[in-house]
Amino acid sequence: MQMREMGEFNFIKSVADDTIYDMSTVICGIGDDCAVYKAKKGYHQLVSTDMMVEGIHFSSKTTAPFDIGYRLGTANISDIAAMGGVPRQVVIAVAAPPDGNSQRLQEIYEGLKSICKIHHVNIIGGDTVRTDGPLTVSLTIIGEVPEETELYRSGAQVGDVVGITNTIGDSAVGLEALLDNARGYLHCKRVHQRPEPQVYLGNVLRSLGAHAMNDISDGLGSELNEIAHASGVAIEIDETAMRFHPEVIQWAKKKEISPWSFALYGGEDFQLVFTIPENIVNEVSALEGIQLIGHVVSGAPGVCLRTAQGEKKIIPAQGYNHFSK
Amino acid sequence: MQMREMGEFNFIKSVADDTIYDMSTVICGIGDDCAVYKAKKGYHQLVSTDMMVEGIHFSSKTTAPFDIGYRLGTANISDIAAMGGVPRQVVIAVAAPPDGNSQRLQEIYEGLKSICKIHHVNIIGGDTVRTDGPLTVSLTIIGEVPEETELYRSGAQVGDVVGITNTIGDSAVGLEALLDNARGYLHCKRVHQRPEPQVYLGNVLRSLGAHAMNDISDGLGSELNEIAHASGVAIEIDETAMRFHPEVIQWAKKKEISPWSFALYGGEDFQLVFTIPENIVNEVSALEGIQLIGHVVSGAPGVCLRTAQGEKKIIPAQGYNHFSK
Repeated sequence: MQMREMGEFNFIKSVADDTIYDMSTVICGIGDDCAVYKAKKGYHQLVSTDMMVEGIHFSSKTTAPFDIGYRLGTANISDIAAMGGVPRQVVIAVAAPPDGNSQRLQEIYEGLKSICKIHHVNIIGGDTVRTDGPLTVSLTIIGEVPEETELYRSGAQVGDVVGITNTIGDSAVGLEALLDNARGYLHCKRVHQRPEPQVYLGNVLRSLGAHAMNDISDGLGSELNEIAHASGVAIEIDETAMRFHPEVIQWAKKKEISPWSFALYGGEDFQLVFTIPENIVNEVSALEGIQLIGHVVSGAPGVCLRTAQGEKKIIPAQGYNHFSK
Repeated sequence: MQMREMGEFNFIKSVADDTIYDMSTVICGIGDDCAVYKAKKGYHQLVSTDMMVEGIHFSSKTTAPFDIGYRLGTANISDIAAMGGVPRQVVIAVAAPPDGNSQRLQEIYEGLKSICKIHHVNIIGGDTVRTDGPLTVSLTIIGEVPEETELYRSGAQVGDVVGITNTIGDSAVGLEALLDNARGYLHCKRVHQRPEPQVYLGNVLRSLGAHAMNDISDGLGSELNEIAHASGVAIEIDETAMRFHPEVIQWAKKKEISPWSFALYGGEDFQLVFTIPENIVNEVSALEGIQLIGHVVSGAPGVCLRTAQGEKKIIPAQGYNHFSK
């Protein structure tokens, strides 16, 4: 059925069910001028917003509708994880073409619900409007973190050890494998289609006393440069310390490029990059899903890669600029 | 300069200044994975989101860029006012065409800043992305209200008196006057271009003990029906009790239609409609900018207009459906 036939109110009715996964914080969900919720005493509130546009951030070729919703949820939840916080509530705004398929939009909601359910994040409100352009979805997330413990990118200190969660470059390889119609690469394809936000590890790292944290949405190169510049420190990454997923190594070999290209400039892994003081290195490295890959040193803010041969290569920021080609 | 030339990061830098108007609640504004803010102890949190699309919700013919931002701010602040709350923080997401004029987008921000400044609402975060479609802006607002005092549309009780703030239909007349290039009608044009959210009166009405409240974004007919159906009551409006703005009367006369058409189906006035118990009628009617226009009675949920001749005309819901023509 087209959105035009279904109408705004019937559509909202069809997606408003099963949206509350943690009753304890919600007073009133979808249906009034505002949603009403409780903030936890002794906690700071966190908020972040992300917008995704069809044809720019996702395409029907590589991403099923369910996965669009899932990815949107992950991108937002990951921003809360990157502060060491717990995600609580989201509101979603959708601009949809009137001749668009209402079932497709419902599947996007199903994907969002699926990732929200896993993390007990309530969908408490939204807005659904018409557009003559591409499908555009915007999600705003609210989370919490114990007062004064939130982790900023500006907290890195000289002497810190730099680490990441799990492996990176996986999503970029997954995207290429999907676009090439390559067989296999199931792990990387799955990471690209349904990346998992690292809420648990973000909270553990915060409570152990990490100094700085970012989520890796734009590639490690960009995220490390953000930490370095915000903290006024230099960061050295050790080429030999990084462990890549076997599929990333395999794909990189096939394409005759370094797996580092995917890690540094790939983005959308939604893993965390962090710095920790020396005195918690043992505890942190004992955690599952942690790699320690470098150090914070004094010097002009910037990032370099120390190769196996002892060479130092500068890693530029090279973030994703939404308005360049 | 085109957005493409300016780039995402330079654009964000150019609008991130002067965005905090109440330092006391903000720990960290624009610039990290999340913004960080404090929630007030003993208060419930309110959240609402609104999306506006160029060509659907605004056109360059009737709305200057500054006014687009102003209206977007008002629409969101008004949702908080409608719960009896105080607006605190907003985050904005923008999808802009790469060949769009960056100065125009900056002017939209200026309009948003202007209305936010008046109400001490901080702009603490955002997302700026590219689109191949029309300019699309999405705003999410967070506000607060003393615990258990928020006003729902479901709170109306039989015996209540129904009121509105100020006058309505003004925005619809303003739009028509602008489209017709009519001279004069300065009040109505101004209401259409820069409507003012009724935060002050919303809070006074809440603290005096109002029972139910909505803001009038879709026309009085739709809003009253929402209250009637959510509360399970009937509402009777008294035709002779309503006072219209002189410009609305003048325009209606010129167009040979009833000023009630503008009030009931016009929308975008962002005034409040509310119900109050009999025992506070004197206090409420002593306030400046209040009209009492009807009663809550028992009966099947619905709304009717009692004419000067004693006739009863049913007022249909007829809200704005974003996907119909």
